[in-house]
Amino acid sequence: MKYHVDGDLLPADEASVSVRDRGFRYGDAAFETLRAYGGSIFEWDAHEARLRRTADLLGFADWVPDDLRERVRGTLATNDLHEAYVRLSVTRGAGAGRLAPASAVDPTVVVIVEELPRGGLAGESVWDGPATVQTVKTRAVPDAAMPSDAKTHNYLNGVLARIELQRAANEEYRADEALLRDGEGTLTEGATSNVFFVEEGTLKTPSTDGALLPGITRSVVLDLAADEEFPVETGRYTTADVREADEAFLTNTTWELRPIARADGVAVGGGPVTQLLARLFDERVERVQYE
Amino acid sequence: MKYHVDGDLLPADEASVSVRDRGFRYGDAAFETLRAYGGSIFEWDAHEARLRRTADLLGFADWVPDDLRERVRGTLATNDLHEAYVRLSVTRGAGAGRLAPASAVDPTVVVIVEELPRGGLAGESVWDGPATVQTVKTRAVPDAAMPSDAKTHNYLNGVLARIELQRAANEEYRADEALLRDGEGTLTEGATSNVFFVEEGTLKTPSTDGALLPGITRSVVLDLAADEEFPVETGRYTTADVREADEAFLTNTTWELRPIARADGVAVGGGPVTQLLARLFDERVERVQYE
Repeated sequence: MKYHVDGDLLPADEASVSVRDRGFRYGDAAFETLRAYGGSIFEWDAHEARLRRTADLLGFADWVPDDLRERVRGTLATNDLHEAYVRLSVTRGAGAGRLAPASAVDPTVVVIVEELPRGGLAGESVWDGPATVQTVKTRAVPDAAMPSDAKTHNYLNGVLARIELQRAANEEYRADEALLRDGEGTLTEGATSNVFFVEEGTLKTPSTDGALLPGITRSVVLDLAADEEFPVETGRYTTADVREADEAFLTNTTWELRPIARADGVAVGGGPVTQLLARLFDERVERVQYE
Repeated sequence: MKYHVDGDLLPADEASVSVRDRGFRYGDAAFETLRAYGGSIFEWDAHEARLRRTADLLGFADWVPDDLRERVRGTLATNDLHEAYVRLSVTRGAGAGRLAPASAVDPTVVVIVEELPRGGLAGESVWDGPATVQTVKTRAVPDAAMPSDAKTHNYLNGVLARIELQRAANEEYRADEALLRDGEGTLTEGATSNVFFVEEGTLKTPSTDGALLPGITRSVVLDLAADEEFPVETGRYTTADVREADEAFLTNTTWELRPIARADGVAVGGGPVTQLLARLFDERVERVQYE
């Protein structure tokens, strides 16, 4: 496999960044996780817009190059990949050694790819079963400390949430995803996913007013629900709402929609709304990517 | 200059880490900033203990190698450096691509060095004058989201605080350091420093119960004050306490003690307590490092 680093396509084992790169030193970088279906990137515009918004919040949007899409496409083409996981990072570059960034930025652009077969209407999902989720003690980072709509290389909050799951139970009984809450106890998101649930026929998900990253898959699901004229509500919820829901599922770029089998040990499961939305999502992927 | 990366001493321009390294992907790494005086590292034991505590909080303490001090010494010796800035990082390594860490860790150890002349009793300080400090809107990350005594590559909170200063004023009028508060408005620390102030003869600094990194220089200063039988108090303070103080100063490894000239535009300045502590600090460096 070849990765793209700053204009060069390099064997994966040789792809590296300087130890002085601020993306390494401080996690001072924006990134996106993308999926390619049928050789083209799903929801590119939304991902690029979010990456640029992150870079703007970090103050280096003006230096992000224009040809990001070409770099991703070139990396996929070189590796002859059609169904793929893609990680695109833009860092503030090496710059000076001090914390306060230099005014001129020479960003580092990295594209990592790996094969990821599509599940879709006929195939198998990337996950091996519905998810179990567990509420963790680790709380979401408040907006005032770090804008939650910035997707950056400062990802230890999610790592710590997952480590809590690892410490709580051995592999056989371990939950797949952590449910995070803010300081007031309001449900925000999973460590790498957004949370949806269905209550009395209404599809519900935490509002982006809270400390959560507005996922691209989350947004596609909300669009699909609106197209079907499903009742939809975004608001402030608790993990108890998920435990008591009629259906619940997680969303992210790699999982797409993944039903929640159990939340904090309580059986929840998917259901007709989850199944229909997953089917509509697959149909949308097929329509947009393969026609 | 040569840097140390995982057992190899490499020219600075070739020193790099894999783009798959978790230190790059997630900021999943512990680090320390150290100073060498007279060729040996100041307060090594305290820095190593803190690095291992950070690795423990991140769950990879068992994999941190035993020979960190030798790696730092070797890097200093290779570069014939006696007065130096040192940055030592230990990451969780490349591992798997997913957020939840693998159970076995192959850490990446990086040592960056640069020359940093000592100020000391006779010379000039590393800073070019007393500091101006400014309270920022960016709030400290609460302990519940990220343990504040972990010194990790997730350093964007400090970067954002410094960017606020850059956006607030052009270079001539820009504050040198940001004062951060927690969600309740309690003063925690600077972006890269701890804060001390003197009120009616008592030396005061925010308690480590708050969301702050307990600095090694902070701890040395508290020891020196105790040796002199100065009245010392640690507690919960506000930025107003700094503005209204008789004296105030910042501490960190590179600055040592740096007086605060102005806080939020209000003149504060050093004074006899600051000067005495700075002198005692210099004497301690000379006694420990050069005899």
